[in-house]
Amino acid sequence: MPKGELSLESSRSAAQAPPVIPNVLAERYASSAIQAIWSAEGRIVLEREFWIAVMKAQRDLGLDVPSEAIAAYESVKNQVDPASIMAREKISRHDVKARIEEFNDLAGFEQVHKGMTSRDLTENVEQLQVYRSLQIIRDKSVATLRRLRERAEQWNELILTARTHNVAAQPTTLGKRVAMFGEELLSALTALDAVIGHYAVRGLKGAVGTQMDQLSLFEGDADKVAELEQRVVSHLGMPAVWTNVGQVYPRSLDLRVVAALTDLASGPSSFCKTLRLMAGHETASEGFAPGQTGSSAMPHKMNSRSCERVNGFHVILKGYLTMASGLAGDQWNEGDVSCSVVRRVMLPDAFFAIDGLFETFLTILDQMDAYEAVIAAETAHYLPFLMTTTIMMEAVKSGVGRETAHKAIKEHAVATVNDLRTGKVSTNNLVERLAEDIRLGLPVEILQGIIARGDRESGAAKAQVAAFAKAVRELETASPEAAAYSPGSIL
Amino acid sequence: MPKGELSLESSRSAAQAPPVIPNVLAERYASSAIQAIWSAEGRIVLEREFWIAVMKAQRDLGLDVPSEAIAAYESVKNQVDPASIMAREKISRHDVKARIEEFNDLAGFEQVHKGMTSRDLTENVEQLQVYRSLQIIRDKSVATLRRLRERAEQWNELILTARTHNVAAQPTTLGKRVAMFGEELLSALTALDAVIGHYAVRGLKGAVGTQMDQLSLFEGDADKVAELEQRVVSHLGMPAVWTNVGQVYPRSLDLRVVAALTDLASGPSSFCKTLRLMAGHETASEGFAPGQTGSSAMPHKMNSRSCERVNGFHVILKGYLTMASGLAGDQWNEGDVSCSVVRRVMLPDAFFAIDGLFETFLTILDQMDAYEAVIAAETAHYLPFLMTTTIMMEAVKSGVGRETAHKAIKEHAVATVNDLRTGKVSTNNLVERLAEDIRLGLPVEILQGIIARGDRESGAAKAQVAAFAKAVRELETASPEAAAYSPGSIL
Amino acid sequence: MPKGELSLESSRSAAQAPPVIPNVLAERYASSAIQAIWSAEGRIVLEREFWIAVMKAQRDLGLDVPSEAIAAYESVKNQVDPASIMAREKISRHDVKARIEEFNDLAGFEQVHKGMTSRDLTENVEQLQVYRSLQIIRDKSVATLRRLRERAEQWNELILTARTHNVAAQPTTLGKRVAMFGEELLSALTALDAVIGHYAVRGLKGAVGTQMDQLSLFEGDADKVAELEQRVVSHLGMPAVWTNVGQVYPRSLDLRVVAALTDLASGPSSFCKTLRLMAGHETASEGFAPGQTGSSAMPHKMNSRSCERVNGFHVILKGYLTMASGLAGDQWNEGDVSCSVVRRVMLPDAFFAIDGLFETFLTILDQMDAYEAVIAAETAHYLPFLMTTTIMMEAVKSGVGRETAHKAIKEHAVATVNDLRTGKVSTNNLVERLAEDIRLGLPVEILQGIIARGDRESGAAKAQVAAFAKAVRELETASPEAAAYSPGSIL
Amino acid sequence: MPKGELSLESSRSAAQAPPVIPNVLAERYASSAIQAIWSAEGRIVLEREFWIAVMKAQRDLGLDVPSEAIAAYESVKNQVDPASIMAREKISRHDVKARIEEFNDLAGFEQVHKGMTSRDLTENVEQLQVYRSLQIIRDKSVATLRRLRERAEQWNELILTARTHNVAAQPTTLGKRVAMFGEELLSALTALDAVIGHYAVRGLKGAVGTQMDQLSLFEGDADKVAELEQRVVSHLGMPAVWTNVGQVYPRSLDLRVVAALTDLASGPSSFCKTLRLMAGHETASEGFAPGQTGSSAMPHKMNSRSCERVNGFHVILKGYLTMASGLAGDQWNEGDVSCSVVRRVMLPDAFFAIDGLFETFLTILDQMDAYEAVIAAETAHYLPFLMTTTIMMEAVKSGVGRETAHKAIKEHAVATVNDLRTGKVSTNNLVERLAEDIRLGLPVEILQGIIARGDRESGAAKAQVAAFAKAVRELETASPEAAAYSPGSIL
Repeated sequence: MPKGELSLESSRSAAQAPPVIPNVLAERYASSAIQAIWSAEGRIVLEREFWIAVMKAQRDLGLDVPSEAIAAYESVKNQVDPASIMAREKISRHDVKARIEEFNDLAGFEQVHKGMTSRDLTENVEQLQVYRSLQIIRDKSVATLRRLRERAEQWNELILTARTHNVAAQPTTLGKRVAMFGEELLSALTALDAVIGHYAVRGLKGAVGTQMDQLSLFEGDADKVAELEQRVVSHLGMPAVWTNVGQVYPRSLDLRVVAALTDLASGPSSFCKTLRLMAGHETASEGFAPGQTGSSAMPHKMNSRSCERVNGFHVILKGYLTMASGLAGDQWNEGDVSCSVVRRVMLPDAFFAIDGLFETFLTILDQMDAYEAVIAAETAHYLPFLMTTTIMMEAVKSGVGRETAHKAIKEHAVATVNDLRTGKVSTNNLVERLAEDIRLGLPVEILQGIIARGDRESGAAKAQVAAFAKAVRELETASPEAAAYSPGSIL
Repeated sequence: MPKGELSLESSRSAAQAPPVIPNVLAERYASSAIQAIWSAEGRIVLEREFWIAVMKAQRDLGLDVPSEAIAAYESVKNQVDPASIMAREKISRHDVKARIEEFNDLAGFEQVHKGMTSRDLTENVEQLQVYRSLQIIRDKSVATLRRLRERAEQWNELILTARTHNVAAQPTTLGKRVAMFGEELLSALTALDAVIGHYAVRGLKGAVGTQMDQLSLFEGDADKVAELEQRVVSHLGMPAVWTNVGQVYPRSLDLRVVAALTDLASGPSSFCKTLRLMAGHETASEGFAPGQTGSSAMPHKMNSRSCERVNGFHVILKGYLTMASGLAGDQWNEGDVSCSVVRRVMLPDAFFAIDGLFETFLTILDQMDAYEAVIAAETAHYLPFLMTTTIMMEAVKSGVGRETAHKAIKEHAVATVNDLRTGKVSTNNLVERLAEDIRLGLPVEILQGIIARGDRESGAAKAQVAAFAKAVRELETASPEAAAYSPGSIL
Repeated sequence: MPKGELSLESSRSAAQAPPVIPNVLAERYASSAIQAIWSAEGRIVLEREFWIAVMKAQRDLGLDVPSEAIAAYESVKNQVDPASIMAREKISRHDVKARIEEFNDLAGFEQVHKGMTSRDLTENVEQLQVYRSLQIIRDKSVATLRRLRERAEQWNELILTARTHNVAAQPTTLGKRVAMFGEELLSALTALDAVIGHYAVRGLKGAVGTQMDQLSLFEGDADKVAELEQRVVSHLGMPAVWTNVGQVYPRSLDLRVVAALTDLASGPSSFCKTLRLMAGHETASEGFAPGQTGSSAMPHKMNSRSCERVNGFHVILKGYLTMASGLAGDQWNEGDVSCSVVRRVMLPDAFFAIDGLFETFLTILDQMDAYEAVIAAETAHYLPFLMTTTIMMEAVKSGVGRETAHKAIKEHAVATVNDLRTGKVSTNNLVERLAEDIRLGLPVEILQGIIARGDRESGAAKAQVAAFAKAVRELETASPEAAAYSPGSIL
Repeated sequence: MPKGELSLESSRSAAQAPPVIPNVLAERYASSAIQAIWSAEGRIVLEREFWIAVMKAQRDLGLDVPSEAIAAYESVKNQVDPASIMAREKISRHDVKARIEEFNDLAGFEQVHKGMTSRDLTENVEQLQVYRSLQIIRDKSVATLRRLRERAEQWNELILTARTHNVAAQPTTLGKRVAMFGEELLSALTALDAVIGHYAVRGLKGAVGTQMDQLSLFEGDADKVAELEQRVVSHLGMPAVWTNVGQVYPRSLDLRVVAALTDLASGPSSFCKTLRLMAGHETASEGFAPGQTGSSAMPHKMNSRSCERVNGFHVILKGYLTMASGLAGDQWNEGDVSCSVVRRVMLPDAFFAIDGLFETFLTILDQMDAYEAVIAAETAHYLPFLMTTTIMMEAVKSGVGRETAHKAIKEHAVATVNDLRTGKVSTNNLVERLAEDIRLGLPVEILQGIIARGDRESGAAKAQVAAFAKAVRELETASPEAAAYSPGSIL
């Protein structure tokens, strides 16, 4: 066993604090809007606003909560000192208790958290963070779809060699290729909207979910307790509320959220993989900013680093999906905190990652280039192959059996490919070979006509792009502010 | 390095075939309804029906497809010989080609698959398998919710010691506990319905998604090609169709499906974990069939084996979720078959697993027992602790600060627990200790009254159960056949 | 909600059995050697041999086990009737009990399983299946490395444009590229050998791991019980045995195994991704068997279907890795069967997948082609770019600052790329541009000399390949039979 | 669609920076030793030391690197200004370039990074971070094993009701239960040592792995380049070096590391799950610090919050395992940065999580309590059941068939359990029932003798614990400093 070079002395009990290690996803990639939701400071203010909302409702419904106490709490709610709270937590080993004490001491009252358990606070506030983040991500999806729509329309006429199995297959258009990944995102957005639209908050349910303590405070008056919860849910602004929960809301809801984010990332991720492939053929690139360095070693390099990053974010999201699935279906009785550390990491970091993904992808969509000359050269090179299905259809229409035609064409196509690769022939003479095969019975003029049409031939691609554009325009009209969003500058 | 005992000679090229290894999830756990959808035989018939539907539509729209050919295909469509097809595939190394040749040879024509690429066949048929499976699983969710509703109502009055962090917390009812996991399932069902309701089939899009070959067959008549696709989609009976796809539909749709199944499994999984915990306390059990052996070694054992199996199915689903997320976002250009072997495994096996989970869980719900005497003894033992929040509320109402009351009660409670655990006291004397503490100022009669009420005290549990029951009854009314389903006998 | 078209009547309680659904990984991809280990029949025989080994040892150590009973068991051990066993299991709901009864009834004795719990049987036999499978996979890794070594040596001189970020970077050789992925596999094989070399079997530990029942049988004679276990472990032939276990061995051992398989699959998977990329540039292909159909629609297609399949297997393994990690760290007390259904799926299927991966990858390595003419054309096209680092080094050596040189070269390189892509220039004139830049101060002859050397320039590639070949040859010498293995024919 | 309440204006381009969001795993859970390795400041210093080591070796081997330049770099190496570097990166969009420029400007030279590509720097430094972290974690495993050994020995005689399927099974000892999870950790440590012992660093391989640029700098002198790399590897202090790599080392090595960490976490995780179960039965607890608050609502609660946290860390590690497996097997050609963002998150965070896990688990082991009175009461209650296997063995020895005895005992045991649960009998009268059954033929005195022995009966538990203790003591002797480590105080 190799021995460690580092002493364990300098361990966590050490006197001087190490420098703060920032959350790398937040610091390098996420927008400030998402950061604001998940910062310690932001969260503490959300919690205090929540406590104040509860106190006000309790007072209005008849509990003895002095108005001057509420005023005192309100006057100090923005005095956030994470270090002081952490010092308290080190004694109580209870994070919520620490935050109660801090807020009480600041205000000089002991009125918050009445009839509440920790999870009455934290679940609701965390769900608020999730819900607001979902809305931001939803809006960025719309902004992304707008750009995909614009790019699809821009390249609607640009004939491109479609590839399956990464080899030339048939003609398509670049616009269609863009719309293909766009429609995947559009579908995921519909799924996300279903998640957002049914998103239910836990509410004020008490220690085991029976609202016993609030009922006790209100002398068993169930109507008042129901009204209290209703007011608090209104404060939060979420579309639904759970009825039967324990101490926690079901963690399958977190799974549903992270799964929706992973789903949402899939269209952009496939787009970026494809753009990386296209960069390899020089048919397109993600663009290259002035001043940007491609490689510290190789000055000529223009790398698809942003596309690679998008793919990286997708891998990250899959990891958080595994974490989310590790919590779902693992509730013991009315719940516990085995989920706590996981959710502290998984929830913000999943949102930082998807946000960083959209910031990056929006930038790619704004800056990417297509190289028409290279695309045209590629099409010209492969055209006789790309049209083999059309030739086969023509043969079938003239009475040749489908399998017979397939076999004949395959023989000549494979031979032509091999001769080209080994340098036996220097130009693609597939048409001549096919014209000589009596099994097909297609005269050379017919064959040449098919090839000649081929570079304008993209099937239903244009109509498909138009359908995509129409669907996205409706979305843009419904959410114009979201559609107009521009990303910040990325690293 | 240890040397293998088994010779590699006996490898897959060996002359005699090894015995068929069955799919263990299908064989041991899945219902025949799900098996029928995913069997090789069933799938081949679905494919042939699909080809016939395409031929009929092509003929009706003007293509030269002889009606006697269609009749010939129809007459042989149920003659399924997987071995013959496999022999063909070994030559062509192309599974669809093998199935085309088989069907053509049986019928004596070469008319199927005109203008189609393999994925025009396989994507649509596989999506049909997925869609029909989703409906079966949806129906079993309804059947499960019916039982959860019945059990929640049955135990609506049964006071139970709710546990958080796996230790006694406050009173609840067993009915509420059941409804808690039930509402989680209900929420997942709503999410599943969104997936089913928007489920889009790929349609007849051709090799790269542009419909070029069908357009070529129909002389460029886009309306006819649209009509052809519409007829084929009607044959399949799914609610939506993709417009912009490549050779494949986006694999994020598979992710969405498997995520929904994992989500759906979470409520049952948490229920079963909790039932395993309750079995440890002998407050409940999953039941024990006559003739059943608990342990081959220990004759007294009555094990939660079915609950453990449900938890096992959930772990399995999470693995398929990882496979699904491994495919999403990884499309290169217009697609390829890197997903093929994964989907051959993941799609049927995820459905076998969720189906086995529901068969098992339905059986548990039918056979489980609650032991009221043990439950009552547990409640009696913990009651003074369970009521500490109520006592604290009482103190707060009488003017004591919340944190002061919390501190006082905690001191006595912890001391009582410790004395009980170490045998220092033999009965729970918390009430006496609290009565003597002037910080609380609560007379002993008040305290005893709280305790006395405690064993009827379950907060809003009954109202919550009623709300759950109402929601489920609506579902039962809407899907009576599904609600009435009974599981087969399980292993 | 759409209504299901399929009736639930045809469910698992239905009278007629559906056709057997085969395990698709076993049927389509795995070798018969691996299938034999994991078949129901094979497993039952392994179990019976294990029981017989226990009985013999018990008898030899003094227990009253009649030799005629042992003889009777031996005479029927190969009479395997899975259907009969399944019928028994349906009554007892206990799989091991069913197999005990079947074996007893066949033999006419009640002597097996004395002092044993189910897990004394199943854990040990399943570990034997795992261990033997590991050895087979280990041997196929050696066979794979042999081919990688051969290919690396074959293409040791073949200059290739290395790509980073999927774009041209610097020259390398194709042999080096092969060795790069080969060394990854070699490293994973070392890790696998560590797993195999420490693989510990659970042994005969009894119901909760204390060996109480064997001790009871042997009147508390601990030496005899130790000797009994030793004999049984010798029968199994594994390198180590656990001492402190409960009813089960720790499931982190399964995680370790599946992680090692996933690790092992990584080199082949990266190789295949890269070969798919090369196929897109026509610099190489996985080969194309006579009779093979590339695409049912597009006759010219020669697809990287086997490479795609290898990548698919890797995704599958990652799913089983998630399953394995879902079991590890989740042991409750001395254990239970929540792992059972997971391991029934995960263990065989992970081995079927990795075995299928190696069968497929071996075939690729045997059949792949490199197209030297295309490779040479690519190198010629990119050469001035590939040599920019050398040019920069030359400038640095002549006293230019590294960052200054980098900046100058980058400007010209990017401009040249852009002019080529937009058709502004038709040939790569980077050298001329650089020669004119006074910041570099490099005369055109020096620059042309660098370019001229470039197509023979591959740095240390040859020496690196030689080092790889040497390491692999040692492995081949140590395991000649494994190295000589040839794959069966694949689908 | 619900509308977002938050404006997108406040996005990442916003003027004022949001407060730094700390890495929650580092801030709340990880020790300062691990934090120091992964802090931005720490890493930058490591990089600069690496550059200096390269420059020195280059100079010593004959390159023109002025010694005053090296001195200048050394004099400024600790002047770390992350903000300045970030400002540079925003222009170049290249993180390494930014750090080169910063270091150059500080020193006033342009001598670093000669002949190097970014990955020559970053791969090696990141591997150094990984390697040092592995050593710390290794040492904490030893510290953990020491405590497990001490606890196992402390409770070596304490008879405990072992549970399988979470229900009473047979007697064991608490010491054995501890040793059981301890041996799992010991096995994982052996596996970790294999990973550490073979851990190979990438070395100075250049842009595509061929060392072309260093060879160019050294005029093609391969020996000098080999010597250069050797010196740099010596500086790093790792046990091995890759030969054949591209721009990156294979990402399966990261998978191997993260899998080893997940493996290592499994024993502690199972221990903590079991301790949570025991807390539910009040047989043990993780301890409760003075001042600690169990529940803000329920003052009596003493929760297993630290154990729950350990289980949470395990879930987190499984997520990073998925990320690691998402990178492995996905190398395109000679590599790219699609792994970059993933590794920035996964590598430090996985180490923070495992470190936090050990800090927490060490604290649990130091503070946990076992309640002997409760344990004894539990054993007394279940004893007749726990001894049924011994009774069965006794019957078998006296000539009764094993299955006959099993059946008879099962009938009585199940009936007794049911009568106890329903209150039909109040004390366990299994012995009386068995004595009356003629199928067993065991007189009541024999039966009572078995029960009487039972509370001292734990099979081979003591010998097993001794074997575990011996193995751990050897480890402690070999690594006394590691064994002596004490955790910092936890939140």
